[in-house]
Amino acid sequence: MADEALFQFLHNELIQYVYKSSEQGEMENGRCITRLENMGFRVGQGLIERFTKDTARFKDELDVMKFICKDFWTSVFKKQIDNLRTNHQGIYVLQDNKFRLLAQMSGGKQYLEHAPKYLAFSCGLVRGGLSNLGVKSIVTAEVSTMPACKFQIMIQKM
Amino acid sequence: MADEALFQFLHNELIQYVYKSSEQGEMENGRCITRLENMGFRVGQGLIERFTKDTARFKDELDVMKFICKDFWTSVFKKQIDNLRTNHQGIYVLQDNKFRLLAQMSGGKQYLEHAPKYLAFSCGLVRGGLSNLGVKSIVTAEVSTMPACKFQIMIQKM
Repeated sequence: MADEALFQFLHNELIQYVYKSSEQGEMENGRCITRLENMGFRVGQGLIERFTKDTARFKDELDVMKFICKDFWTSVFKKQIDNLRTNHQGIYVLQDNKFRLLAQMSGGKQYLEHAPKYLAFSCGLVRGGLSNLGVKSIVTAEVSTMPACKFQIMIQKM
Repeated sequence: MADEALFQFLHNELIQYVYKSSEQGEMENGRCITRLENMGFRVGQGLIERFTKDTARFKDELDVMKFICKDFWTSVFKKQIDNLRTNHQGIYVLQDNKFRLLAQMSGGKQYLEHAPKYLAFSCGLVRGGLSNLGVKSIVTAEVSTMPACKFQIMIQKM
């Protein structure tokens, strides 16, 4: 619980700092999101190296994705992904019914517009993790009802 | 181990980001340190609220300090403070012989000048935690040999 809180508080400070420093430099919302996403990417790269140190080699892309949904998600967000879907053509949708970084926010629609900044880092985290497992991707997130959240992963064929 | 890594990576990104954004705005080193310290302060405030939710009321200042050295330190840095000293006049010195946020760095003298930026957040963390326990303080850190580190807490009498 302690570590969980530490990550959440630190994550909040990070968002706040990125947006605050953008006000001074007149950086727009999109660039803040990109910055957060990039930070997540590097953290994800680092984490996956630690996590997979002792795991067996992955069979295929789906196997990698299952690892992200179970082990990776549990380590970072303290629960598994609730639902994984794929069209078997390189698109995966990961649904988390109670996403940890949104769980502290009010469930109403009034803060829905602020959701993207709380998801950018995590999108990067997934992209970075996948990247270090040799899977190049684009990761986006969408929220329709807080704190549920869908992450869409589009695999970039190389 | 996972959470530990997450905090470390995130902490590194934070430092990097603060220093990077300072280059653009020509912010000097001192201000970066202050920013990091302030972020630590707010995180510390939040954390101590969670940690002390179910603890008994503290007897005195020394009791508070012991809590910081044991419970707080263990939650955040995964080990206890190795040595706590005080002059009984409001100065406390907390020595950590293997400080977690320095443990990944080379032990030589060559990176010693970079130590302050890796300690600023933690100084704030302690100051914020103490502040929410009603103890106003100034917290500084010093390193003579990595990864050992001394935190000095000067209590501000109100």
